[in-house]
Amino acid sequence: KQYRIAVIPGDGIGKEVMPEGLRVLEAAAKKHGVSVHFDHFDFSSYDYYEKHGQMMPDDWKEKIGKHDAIYFGAVGWPAKIPDHVSLWGSLIKFRREFDQYVNLRPVRLMPGVPSPLAGRKPGDIDFWVVRENTEGEYSSVGGRMFPDTDREFVTQQTVMTRTGVDRILKFAFELAQSRPKKHLTSATKSNGISITMPYWDERVEAMAKKFPGVKWDKYHIDILTANFVLHPDWFDVVVGSNLFGDILSDLGPACTGTIGIAPSGNINPEGDFPSVFEPVHGSAPDIAGQGIANPIGAIWSGAMMFEHLGEKEAGKSIVEAIERTLAERTLRTKDLGGNADTTACGKAVADMVD
Amino acid sequence: KQYRIAVIPGDGIGKEVMPEGLRVLEAAAKKHGVSVHFDHFDFSSYDYYEKHGQMMPDDWKEKIGKHDAIYFGAVGWPAKIPDHVSLWGSLIKFRREFDQYVNLRPVRLMPGVPSPLAGRKPGDIDFWVVRENTEGEYSSVGGRMFPDTDREFVTQQTVMTRTGVDRILKFAFELAQSRPKKHLTSATKSNGISITMPYWDERVEAMAKKFPGVKWDKYHIDILTANFVLHPDWFDVVVGSNLFGDILSDLGPACTGTIGIAPSGNINPEGDFPSVFEPVHGSAPDIAGQGIANPIGAIWSGAMMFEHLGEKEAGKSIVEAIERTLAERTLRTKDLGGNADTTACGKAVADMVD
Ligand SMILES: CC(C)[C@H](C(=O)O)[C@@H](O)C(=O)O
Ligand SMILES: CC(C)[C@H](C(=O)O)[C@@H](O)C(=O)O
Repeated sequence: KQYRIAVIPGDGIGKEVMPEGLRVLEAAAKKHGVSVHFDHFDFSSYDYYEKHGQMMPDDWKEKIGKHDAIYFGAVGWPAKIPDHVSLWGSLIKFRREFDQYVNLRPVRLMPGVPSPLAGRKPGDIDFWVVRENTEGEYSSVGGRMFPDTDREFVTQQTVMTRTGVDRILKFAFELAQSRPKKHLTSATKSNGISITMPYWDERVEAMAKKFPGVKWDKYHIDILTANFVLHPDWFDVVVGSNLFGDILSDLGPACTGTIGIAPSGNINPEGDFPSVFEPVHGSAPDIAGQGIANPIGAIWSGAMMFEHLGEKEAGKSIVEAIERTLAERTLRTKDLGGNADTTACGKAVADMVD
Repeated sequence: KQYRIAVIPGDGIGKEVMPEGLRVLEAAAKKHGVSVHFDHFDFSSYDYYEKHGQMMPDDWKEKIGKHDAIYFGAVGWPAKIPDHVSLWGSLIKFRREFDQYVNLRPVRLMPGVPSPLAGRKPGDIDFWVVRENTEGEYSSVGGRMFPDTDREFVTQQTVMTRTGVDRILKFAFELAQSRPKKHLTSATKSNGISITMPYWDERVEAMAKKFPGVKWDKYHIDILTANFVLHPDWFDVVVGSNLFGDILSDLGPACTGTIGIAPSGNINPEGDFPSVFEPVHGSAPDIAGQGIANPIGAIWSGAMMFEHLGEKEAGKSIVEAIERTLAERTLRTKDLGGNADTTACGKAVADMVD
């Protein structure tokens, strides 16, 4: 079968790292006999918005909804478009309308990347953050009353549905069960967020009964962030709500040295809709146009995409190529103390694929 | 004037660290000619609950509402009472009913305390977290619908009032203005929490206009937690909502080595009600009863209490005594690689006060 991938570079360094991601994907596809076709789209970007007054064409779902996956760069250009237009008009729209209810991000200390945590070595930190990606704290329910008076207030509802909570927990428990340590940690805050978080805990307990082989524990989000720093070796699979998962999946990569190399998948596990794979970093206007962006986040996201499509060997070969590349100072980009530019780093990974 | 302090040891190691806190407060009071009287209370504890079926007597407000401050140990005993009874019946009740709308916590790397962050030395990390302490995400508005069916869902509202947001921002800007760096960082997540967080940002911008001497910036909470780890030297005063402040004031102390020594104040700045000073750590059932708990969190909280009461010199002398004590391995408790027990450490600090 030939995979059809929609490629959306988006804004800023998204446009610089994507060609390197594609270079590596093509190299891995060739080595492993994977047949893949890339369709390029210019929407979900500031440039497109400037021309058309909206982030995406009206028929965006027809254009990319039948692809096997979406390979995404970055979106967001400083202060030129409000977040509710740019982010809610693209990234968050994909997550909601393509029902990508899993946001999956590895936290792994890689060779050659100095950890900000004292004494941690590659192998010490290696876990997954599984984030609920469609509901929770990112709701659209709420509003403002008594505007511009002393009585002014705003409210916003966190919404957790049985469907939404159970399916992300099931995914997380299944992932934990597939790993050697079979350990799941749930992020909660039931002592303070007194309605939704006890519900989350209740569903975790119910789900745990279906996975007797998985050891599980839970931490309040405050001490959990502390434990990411103090005991990153404690974790195997960490599951959290939309907000808690968002926090943990930036903090985790920071503990492994840089969010510049972190990948992510916005996944619809049932395959009813395409999943989106994108680096954790944003469009980085401060360094855009200089050709110095680190392409590893995009490349690693490509590896996750291949794994999601079932091409495990091709995906694994990319991750191993990344590890070998990062181990060499001359092949790393500036942000990691190296002296390669974006293209040189991308070429190095492509060459290392086997 | 003689200060009247209500002393509430609470549960677990709260009962072990408070005597050391009092020992040090008495030493500092004597040296600096501060007159202080301590009233001891056994409520807000599991023991009290077991005898009386509630955490506090009905007339708790009369009993402690007229004191100049409340010196608190820790509350919470594992799984024996639900959080909504123990925490919401004591700690959170104080915060709400005594209008302690500021939760103030220093994040400071102390001599003798190894930081989990590579290469950070005392002096590199020194900032305050200012947390809104009465509203926001810790609301009681919400509920459950369609229980025990597939359509089940829960909602909980985050509530931000103009009064609540403006007063915490004012406190934070004033604190920033009083410090050499005059720098304030606001925690937001307006790109995801699309109603309440943009409101928070709007009020920050309005308040900033009143403090032209303060440089300010804002970060989304996800990257902010990452920056606590990667760039703790960037911060001076960090202000956040109830939830974000909660997270940052556990993560911050973790970055400085241990939450075991971190102090906090739950402050009613107007002085209409007493403020509560308590260590950040909890009742720690796992080590309670062994006499090995680190009393520094309680002692440092006592120093904050003296400073709050206007006894700056006495407060400062305690903080300096803590620094001198921590610098000596033989005077530190086990959790910091020392060999002193709770009492020996407390006595050491008391001796160092001058
Ligand atoms: C015990 C809990 C309710 C409390 C909070 O979340 O406020 C604690 O974490 C704190 O920071 O004082
Ligand atoms: C850009 C923002 C809305 C987004 C989020 O909070 O989900 C980002 O932080 C992420 O993690 O993908």
